[in-house]
Amino acid sequence: MSENNSNKHVIEGNLLSPLPVILVGANVNGKPNYLVIGYSCPFDFGKYIFFSLYPKRYTAIGIHENMTFSVNIPSEDLVEKTNICGSKSGRDIDKSSLFDNFYGELKTAPMIRECPVNIECKVHEILDYGDGEGIIGKVIKSYVDQQYTSKVEGKVILDWRKIHPIIWTTGGDFNYYKLGERIIVKDN
Amino acid sequence: MSENNSNKHVIEGNLLSPLPVILVGANVNGKPNYLVIGYSCPFDFGKYIFFSLYPKRYTAIGIHENMTFSVNIPSEDLVEKTNICGSKSGRDIDKSSLFDNFYGELKTAPMIRECPVNIECKVHEILDYGDGEGIIGKVIKSYVDQQYTSKVEGKVILDWRKIHPIIWTTGGDFNYYKLGERIIVKDN
Repeated sequence: MSENNSNKHVIEGNLLSPLPVILVGANVNGKPNYLVIGYSCPFDFGKYIFFSLYPKRYTAIGIHENMTFSVNIPSEDLVEKTNICGSKSGRDIDKSSLFDNFYGELKTAPMIRECPVNIECKVHEILDYGDGEGIIGKVIKSYVDQQYTSKVEGKVILDWRKIHPIIWTTGGDFNYYKLGERIIVKDN
Repeated sequence: MSENNSNKHVIEGNLLSPLPVILVGANVNGKPNYLVIGYSCPFDFGKYIFFSLYPKRYTAIGIHENMTFSVNIPSEDLVEKTNICGSKSGRDIDKSSLFDNFYGELKTAPMIRECPVNIECKVHEILDYGDGEGIIGKVIKSYVDQQYTSKVEGKVILDWRKIHPIIWTTGGDFNYYKLGERIIVKDN
């Protein structure tokens, strides 16, 4: 074991990625609004979802008001609309007209029909970190279009090769990427 | 807007992905140990890292004891060793011998020289969710090998096309994937 770090360079910034691109939905002033979230992950074996939210965002108003939100996973073919949701505020444009919206059990968490995967969440806890809130939602119900699933040993599973999700990277390389091929792991 | 969800099927499970595969390091009983973590994301513009930890894990002992940990991002060529870290416990094998370990500023957060990106963190908050703890670490210092960077407009940035990170998926499709090609976004 070498204790020095001579071949390593200290670098500033936010380096953890690649991360899933999701659209978080909430009703704001009675209308569906969607925001691109770059920092999210499931939590406690998928029972919860954690994401980081800048509290001045328009969508944050609806999340705080209704204490519900949705997570929608867009396909590559939605990248332009996703980009609009990430670059324009709901204060300036009506994002409800971008998609075919639907509601599930919670009634106040609008979801995007065009997205392969939709997850309804109830806000469970909000962590106050000043510049960025940590929102923890309890997963209530999830939806998927059958065309994105496969049957493996009799069980219906998501097939991410069919979903074509959008991935993004940090550390200065702020680009959208495709999901690549499966890696075959050789057992040792 | 259609209010029904007729083409959508309710599905059980943990559907949010793709997610980065990281190796979280901690000193346990005086030796570096590494654990594969599948649920993690940066937080508050990258100042913090959130990850979900099953508290019975061997690595959890070291995180609680030292209140420090590291995040190491492995390349595809480390997939077999990553798999060992994910399938064997530090109670049974000595994982410190798998890698060339090094330490940074915190002195108690072991890092893996072979991983392109290493991030030292101090534990800031531990959320108790029963089956799965939420660990929030404050990022102290980050390291990268120069070969994984590019210069863009005079600024050194991570180039994820050089890093070849490992990505994994949930929802029953528990596979490792490569990062795919960049998606070119057409401005509307």
